[in-house]
Amino acid sequence: MIIVLRPGTQDAEVEDICRRIEALGLQAHVSRGEQRTLIGAIGEDRFKTQLQALGALEFVESLVPILQPFKLAGREVHPADSIIEVDAVRIGGPRLTVMAGPCSVESEEQLRVVAEGVKGGGAHILRGGAFKPRTSPYAFQGLETEGLRLLAEARKRTGLPVVTEVLGPEKVEVVAEYADILQIGARNAQNFSLLKEVGQCAKPVLLKRGMATTIKEFLLSAEYVLAGGNPNVILCERGIRTFETTTRFTLDLNAIPVIKQLSHLPILVDPSHGTGHWEYVPAMAKAGLAAGADGLLIEVHPRPVEALSDGPQSLKPDRFARLMDELRVLAGALGRTI
Amino acid sequence: MIIVLRPGTQDAEVEDICRRIEALGLQAHVSRGEQRTLIGAIGEDRFKTQLQALGALEFVESLVPILQPFKLAGREVHPADSIIEVDAVRIGGPRLTVMAGPCSVESEEQLRVVAEGVKGGGAHILRGGAFKPRTSPYAFQGLETEGLRLLAEARKRTGLPVVTEVLGPEKVEVVAEYADILQIGARNAQNFSLLKEVGQCAKPVLLKRGMATTIKEFLLSAEYVLAGGNPNVILCERGIRTFETTTRFTLDLNAIPVIKQLSHLPILVDPSHGTGHWEYVPAMAKAGLAAGADGLLIEVHPRPVEALSDGPQSLKPDRFARLMDELRVLAGALGRTI
Amino acid sequence: MIIVLRPGTQDAEVEDICRRIEALGLQAHVSRGEQRTLIGAIGEDRFKTQLQALGALEFVESLVPILQPFKLAGREVHPADSIIEVDAVRIGGPRLTVMAGPCSVESEEQLRVVAEGVKGGGAHILRGGAFKPRTSPYAFQGLETEGLRLLAEARKRTGLPVVTEVLGPEKVEVVAEYADILQIGARNAQNFSLLKEVGQCAKPVLLKRGMATTIKEFLLSAEYVLAGGNPNVILCERGIRTFETTTRFTLDLNAIPVIKQLSHLPILVDPSHGTGHWEYVPAMAKAGLAAGADGLLIEVHPRPVEALSDGPQSLKPDRFARLMDELRVLAGALGRTI
Amino acid sequence: MIIVLRPGTQDAEVEDICRRIEALGLQAHVSRGEQRTLIGAIGEDRFKTQLQALGALEFVESLVPILQPFKLAGREVHPADSIIEVDAVRIGGPRLTVMAGPCSVESEEQLRVVAEGVKGGGAHILRGGAFKPRTSPYAFQGLETEGLRLLAEARKRTGLPVVTEVLGPEKVEVVAEYADILQIGARNAQNFSLLKEVGQCAKPVLLKRGMATTIKEFLLSAEYVLAGGNPNVILCERGIRTFETTTRFTLDLNAIPVIKQLSHLPILVDPSHGTGHWEYVPAMAKAGLAAGADGLLIEVHPRPVEALSDGPQSLKPDRFARLMDELRVLAGALGRTI
Repeated sequence: MIIVLRPGTQDAEVEDICRRIEALGLQAHVSRGEQRTLIGAIGEDRFKTQLQALGALEFVESLVPILQPFKLAGREVHPADSIIEVDAVRIGGPRLTVMAGPCSVESEEQLRVVAEGVKGGGAHILRGGAFKPRTSPYAFQGLETEGLRLLAEARKRTGLPVVTEVLGPEKVEVVAEYADILQIGARNAQNFSLLKEVGQCAKPVLLKRGMATTIKEFLLSAEYVLAGGNPNVILCERGIRTFETTTRFTLDLNAIPVIKQLSHLPILVDPSHGTGHWEYVPAMAKAGLAAGADGLLIEVHPRPVEALSDGPQSLKPDRFARLMDELRVLAGALGRTI
Repeated sequence: MIIVLRPGTQDAEVEDICRRIEALGLQAHVSRGEQRTLIGAIGEDRFKTQLQALGALEFVESLVPILQPFKLAGREVHPADSIIEVDAVRIGGPRLTVMAGPCSVESEEQLRVVAEGVKGGGAHILRGGAFKPRTSPYAFQGLETEGLRLLAEARKRTGLPVVTEVLGPEKVEVVAEYADILQIGARNAQNFSLLKEVGQCAKPVLLKRGMATTIKEFLLSAEYVLAGGNPNVILCERGIRTFETTTRFTLDLNAIPVIKQLSHLPILVDPSHGTGHWEYVPAMAKAGLAAGADGLLIEVHPRPVEALSDGPQSLKPDRFARLMDELRVLAGALGRTI
Repeated sequence: MIIVLRPGTQDAEVEDICRRIEALGLQAHVSRGEQRTLIGAIGEDRFKTQLQALGALEFVESLVPILQPFKLAGREVHPADSIIEVDAVRIGGPRLTVMAGPCSVESEEQLRVVAEGVKGGGAHILRGGAFKPRTSPYAFQGLETEGLRLLAEARKRTGLPVVTEVLGPEKVEVVAEYADILQIGARNAQNFSLLKEVGQCAKPVLLKRGMATTIKEFLLSAEYVLAGGNPNVILCERGIRTFETTTRFTLDLNAIPVIKQLSHLPILVDPSHGTGHWEYVPAMAKAGLAAGADGLLIEVHPRPVEALSDGPQSLKPDRFARLMDELRVLAGALGRTI
Repeated sequence: MIIVLRPGTQDAEVEDICRRIEALGLQAHVSRGEQRTLIGAIGEDRFKTQLQALGALEFVESLVPILQPFKLAGREVHPADSIIEVDAVRIGGPRLTVMAGPCSVESEEQLRVVAEGVKGGGAHILRGGAFKPRTSPYAFQGLETEGLRLLAEARKRTGLPVVTEVLGPEKVEVVAEYADILQIGARNAQNFSLLKEVGQCAKPVLLKRGMATTIKEFLLSAEYVLAGGNPNVILCERGIRTFETTTRFTLDLNAIPVIKQLSHLPILVDPSHGTGHWEYVPAMAKAGLAAGADGLLIEVHPRPVEALSDGPQSLKPDRFARLMDELRVLAGALGRTI
């Protein structure tokens, strides 16, 4: 951290800051330039979040962090790519992972048709929501525990591991009982109670970026899970909020190479939520892989016009299968397999 | 809801949509223009969120909602301003409400000094965080239950009702035991498990807008609480995420007159989080009231440079008292009292 | 500027950077910390924009500017508030300035009615567009030179100085012939050819913030005019682009105290463009003044429903006059006059 | 356009609106629902921008446009993809187009090295700035006419057509004399004087999206050029402004499939400006093509650390050549050539 002082700061004030830095177990280094005096706080200041309070001093102009605020999620302490294993699926290696399925689990029949469809198309993991976070209280809220049961059945039938969302810390136990991967949705990306709880869970976590979460904050949310003791975090870019309204969100694919540089964690792309329209899903699925993502999360529904949630962004099983064929060719050109 | 069809849509397809609309208990009205055919879904479609799925049809160009998606939070069914009573404090009437206190409860001594300071300055409600949502897992996470106890003591000493944040549904009971108002923070503005839980609680709820929550989504979050049976919701604008970086967030004061037009619920402004810097708090506190807010939420700390959270945006008690004097004059000019 | 090096940077590379810094006439100061080595470029680096290119080096992790990038627009070299005089109107002092009038000059009769209306209400300066920047090529593009002539006539009749927009460098001469203040619109906030041209003009410039312009970039645009030799720049906040759609733009009132701290230039607020709806204009006009702005820019039209541009955000003359009465009371409470 | 009326609107008011709609040469169609009365304005309302003013009426709740606001740029009147020919290069067909070169033309030697490098790598068009739009007035502003001359020489030597930016209407003639394609930069995306001027020019126009320009506004800017009589518009997505700061802008690749659906114009992607860092350029170049773009705009410099502008985002010629090899393989997998 560098503390930039306003012109005219007195020596006593400089000393006061140095004392405060040293009291936190860091070293202080004063550098007087022509225009500004700077004080460097030297050491592992990532855990010294109290340094922030120096910004309250009237003669402090600004605080400049030098180190990334996360540690366990960063490449500096863990240079090699992390690979998360879920049964036989290895997420983060040269083979790309595709998770597909309906937004909501709606019925035994619906899930069966989709599960067989996505398996036939070549998906590796079945997704489906049992507890649904809906913007409106009047919208379908999910089949809840019955939905979890149907997912477990579908896994048994297809052999595909299952990922489903958990909405609160009090539900982690029951969801973990049925699911192979626990999904934290975009609206809970900074639900710290929930992040702490899944940090103590034995199941891998699929952590979606919030719609207003910066990349650094996103990695700090991952850090909550890692610091809790759960090393198996899979990141997912699913679109951020911007001024553009022709798409539901703006898929931030820049985040893929940036996160690949900063972090060892695998990262997927969700073109369904990232665009909100099924017509745009194939293009953005390809773009996500070309940007370097480790896989995709795609919504598939047998009859999107009857879907209880997110119909407009769902592919039908046959369109999904055709997309998978296209992705296989693309993966080859990118030096990966699918 | 209006369904806009692409040019060339066949009659059979038009009829199919009409059938689907009628199956939901609504009327369908077809209007054929020169350039586009439109189908209106007539009736109370707010609760028919399944209409959204029509967007999945290839020949549907767009869906245009006509009614606001919320109902209980809207002025149409509740034209008069809601006034929320907390002991002798009436939030939402001609008298403005100021909630002030430290970001985090840090110690008995700190809370005592602040509580007396803000009471002396004229605040009506004491704020203070016991459970803290922190971006970094390495930051101070709050005194938790001990913090709640200290708040209850401070209430006894000063007579000020207390507002404090609740982070998850499993904590609603314990927080409601100590607090007079339950705060839902910005990062939980769409934590629907939590919204449902406080909807069944007897205590008023202070609901902060999320940093990427549109005004309509914000009112839908309020709708969750209202639909759960708790009519006592106080809204709070606290800044949204934009590209501007000289301030921590961008306080969206436009939201005040917009929400006053759409909703009967009282709305406060939080200039501390909305700017992130104590120097800007007085200007934006005044701007918030001038925009029509029903009150303010202001962070106050005896020694901001030692604060365990949000020091840079905290006022000292004497600066707070001076601000209150300025606000009293301003309130008069706005036809209100404080 | 501080240059942050990646771990493992070699001595030869450090020396290379130091040489490059010194070649620009600055001093280099190396500081080796536990985690990172930093190199400070010491001196007046604001004019050494070539330092940015150091970011191209593979072993440079990041560049951290320490000084603000503008100079003439900043308070450091010009601590006192600038006051811009236009005839008898002094913009930036204790007396607030209100500029009002139609979005577009449409006819002799329309302008006459508005000009008398806003003068009667107490406006100090008449605004009106002759050359109009319209999003659609099919929209009314303004009366052009005839509009300028009508504005000059209205000035003669009312005595109010006139502000009008100039769209390109080739029009500065003709607009300056008729207008007392040249307006640079939001879409031209980074039209550098135009900024250079008005920098060489003798008339004051009303510079609007672009809808995606940061505060620092905004002050750099002002710097273009100041560096060109024209010291008379009046800033105007008029709303930025965000994800919120209930208003046309998001008025960023945080920018007022921030700019007051960074710059000596006067700043106005435009609540008409900042909201896009006349119902919200009074609330946001008041909020703008309470935030510390030096005045307002307000659109007024005798029959908004017939306006050739921006009807929905225009006040009628009588509503404007009532607003001015309210603003007079507010100004008093803020220690200013109007 | 649909006009939504507030509850309680009187018959006389409905008739008044109908009269106003009919006075514009459109038909009015009234539809009375349970909750709202709607009035449809039927006909080619794209050119009736005065309809917007109806939003000024107190009893109008909202205006809902049904048709896209652009026409010539849209697929409805021009279903087939446009192909823009520049010498032997065909932009918009199955063969992808790569434009590459330095941000600024800096010297004869620099341009010669880059031009030969990008030609060797397989670029089709040479880019280079002679007039530079710089955020700071203290930054290098370009070699101006001398830069144009150097570009013309490089074209002669390499045979590559040349694209360069034009900053104002008064410069269109001189730039068109030297350049094969005129570039309109992001900051001038809504500089309507300039758009009108290039609309009357015989040379193709490369139109960059502004950093806060919606896709509809972007196509309206193209419409200005097309309506002026110049059919040769090439669009370019180069990143929008969002809250994310690890990259200079957020490349909005969603815009590619959206624009391909709405418009027949070719669209390129600029990963150099879209990320601001050379390390991310290869990933985002690939992502852009995978999303369906018709080509790329890439900055190349022989010694980025000495570049007078945008060094950090420039590739060296050998890295560019390697990227081109990778793109050739990718193009094959996408069913295109390069």
